[in-house]
Amino acid sequence: MLLLMQGNFAGMSAESGGYDLIQQGAMVLDGDRIVWVGPETALPGEYADLPRHDLGGRLVTPGLIDCHTHVVFGGDRAREFEMRLEGAGYEEIARAGGGILSSVRNTREADEEALLAQSLPRVDALLAEGVTTLEIKSGYGLTVQDELKMLRVARRIAEVRAVTVRTTWLAAHALPPEYKDDRAGYIRDVVIAGMQQGHAEGLIDAVDGFCEGIAFSREEMAAIFDAAAQLGLPVKLHAEQLSDLHGAEMAAQHGALSADHLEWLGQDGIDAMAASGTVAVLLPGAFYTLRETKYPPLQALRDAGVPIALATDCNPGTSPLTSILLTMNMGATLFRMTPVECLTGVTRHAATALGLRDRGQLSPGMRADLAIWDITHPAELTYRIGFNPLHARIVGGEFV
Amino acid sequence: MLLLMQGNFAGMSAESGGYDLIQQGAMVLDGDRIVWVGPETALPGEYADLPRHDLGGRLVTPGLIDCHTHVVFGGDRAREFEMRLEGAGYEEIARAGGGILSSVRNTREADEEALLAQSLPRVDALLAEGVTTLEIKSGYGLTVQDELKMLRVARRIAEVRAVTVRTTWLAAHALPPEYKDDRAGYIRDVVIAGMQQGHAEGLIDAVDGFCEGIAFSREEMAAIFDAAAQLGLPVKLHAEQLSDLHGAEMAAQHGALSADHLEWLGQDGIDAMAASGTVAVLLPGAFYTLRETKYPPLQALRDAGVPIALATDCNPGTSPLTSILLTMNMGATLFRMTPVECLTGVTRHAATALGLRDRGQLSPGMRADLAIWDITHPAELTYRIGFNPLHARIVGGEFV
Ligand SMILES: [Zn+2]
Ligand SMILES: [Zn+2]
Repeated sequence: MLLLMQGNFAGMSAESGGYDLIQQGAMVLDGDRIVWVGPETALPGEYADLPRHDLGGRLVTPGLIDCHTHVVFGGDRAREFEMRLEGAGYEEIARAGGGILSSVRNTREADEEALLAQSLPRVDALLAEGVTTLEIKSGYGLTVQDELKMLRVARRIAEVRAVTVRTTWLAAHALPPEYKDDRAGYIRDVVIAGMQQGHAEGLIDAVDGFCEGIAFSREEMAAIFDAAAQLGLPVKLHAEQLSDLHGAEMAAQHGALSADHLEWLGQDGIDAMAASGTVAVLLPGAFYTLRETKYPPLQALRDAGVPIALATDCNPGTSPLTSILLTMNMGATLFRMTPVECLTGVTRHAATALGLRDRGQLSPGMRADLAIWDITHPAELTYRIGFNPLHARIVGGEFV
Repeated sequence: MLLLMQGNFAGMSAESGGYDLIQQGAMVLDGDRIVWVGPETALPGEYADLPRHDLGGRLVTPGLIDCHTHVVFGGDRAREFEMRLEGAGYEEIARAGGGILSSVRNTREADEEALLAQSLPRVDALLAEGVTTLEIKSGYGLTVQDELKMLRVARRIAEVRAVTVRTTWLAAHALPPEYKDDRAGYIRDVVIAGMQQGHAEGLIDAVDGFCEGIAFSREEMAAIFDAAAQLGLPVKLHAEQLSDLHGAEMAAQHGALSADHLEWLGQDGIDAMAASGTVAVLLPGAFYTLRETKYPPLQALRDAGVPIALATDCNPGTSPLTSILLTMNMGATLFRMTPVECLTGVTRHAATALGLRDRGQLSPGMRADLAIWDITHPAELTYRIGFNPLHARIVGGEFV
């Protein structure tokens, strides 16, 4: 057991709508769990003689949770980014081998080892900012074997780094060229058959899809979600990013953990999400990169009581973003979320978006995943841009 | 002398409009200068036996230059940021002690030591991303002694860190409350008298002002610039950020090194800047934080041949940004600058904005200030968001 003293805790506990601040606080850890937290003056006598660590007045928050990433992929798209800014059109970029299919090609070509090596620097950037739980999606393999390879790499990340990884099956990300005239065949032979195989191998924690005119329809996604339900897998959806296909509403009706993006979300979708407890995961990095002007309906989500999370959406095309702190600043600056909402969005609500009930807040029984910061007030995490005040992480009760 | 081998150099030299890439390159340093750079195969025999360092194929750029910062200040404005997002109006924030005057109060209250300690973490964040030259403005003291104190702290930063600091006298930043009915008195007794004193003490490298309806008029700034000219000090100006007061035009007519912000800059200002060789310093961090919708006239600046630089504008109110790499990404994403323009904007053109002719490019005779990166193509520096691939800096010929 370990006693943390002289901490300034932002507990983010469910009862409070705020930071749930405990100044001059102490915390007791037992193995990988929090067993007590409160003011130092209230520390029960039984803990007084434990080995102790002085936090020096630093701020402690729950370890941050990035609940929507595509952090495993091959190659990068820097040259495509450059060509576009130099005036190239989409056709020219496609001819030069750019676009999502370039990520698919590079991901297919990389073996597990290479994919891991390419992904780790991005993961490390996130962990360096206090992330202790990370969601990782497939979606650049688009064959059964390449999609499963991505999720095996995701699982390996949790072996070589101090982080919990939650894997998401996203074969319904794009239609690969070899299936361009056979959508039903792709859904049957790759999306669903691969999901069954990956589930059997224990590689899949949730199932996701990209519901959009340029990707998969609401009906196609509903069929995939029905197949997921038969395996007992929870679902989530990229929905209402570029248009309102009522994908979030359908996902909510399937009891989705989250619906993500949501710039075009309408009231029907909000009501359905509120009814099902589906988390709204906002992704300001993609909004920023695509220079969107349509804002997610923040006030209506608040009014309906839909929990709101924030995530990096780290991906090579529309959000090459590896900073959860900058994501919080973008949530505030671009979407006008308050700093409390931003921090809740990468802790408690992000945990809910992953179906995890044992983290994202500092209270007894929760996992001892903590981020310790060289700042005095939690609003500083959201206020600053491109500054990382992390002092240390504690993951599963151990300093890393 | 030192021989760098196996480098991938982005020379950014003036002759070329591009990256000026040298693949499989070598570079020879002598003391704090570059004496040779070129393909390894062309290395002159006289350098073959020098002590050598293998760059392992890494990318090398000129050390980055942040040519517009307010990085020295007391306190922070996180709570004000939070209050605004929680719906507080400007009056309420002012009553709670917020706004620029809170930075003035905190800066006045801090002694040199405290101000240095508060500023160093911000400076360190910039250096960690490859910055080797940093401009620092006064402007939160608004008394002669407090303005000079800020510049003394700026000079001390160059003593305790491996970085060149260029100081800028910005007493004409805001009118302090004690002079609110005596603008002329403030300009005479603080702005100009302090400038003369600071110049005599060797504390001032350039003179700046904030030319805006809420700050100082074009005529007031012209008088200050005339006083600077008598001391032989170069000038620059915060101009056309919120409206078009034709400040840039006036500054150019005074031979200004740069005019900065420029969202509202008109063709007259562009023509005057082109004629005088004044650099346009764009500050996307402030544009982003203030959610501006009026874009600086990028294409007209290009067409006129005005050199374009980028800088963080690091300040507690409108750009709490300490990432030069994110500034480059914002230049591309928000302003549609190309990655070549972004990198030129924090190297060669940033040097010009500071009146420095001996850096910002990799060619013989230039200072040996280098940034070494774990990437293969320079476009990656601009493409990624919140990722720092710096491997090492070389400052004045030495690894740091
Ligand atoms: Zn996504
Ligand atoms: Zn400024």
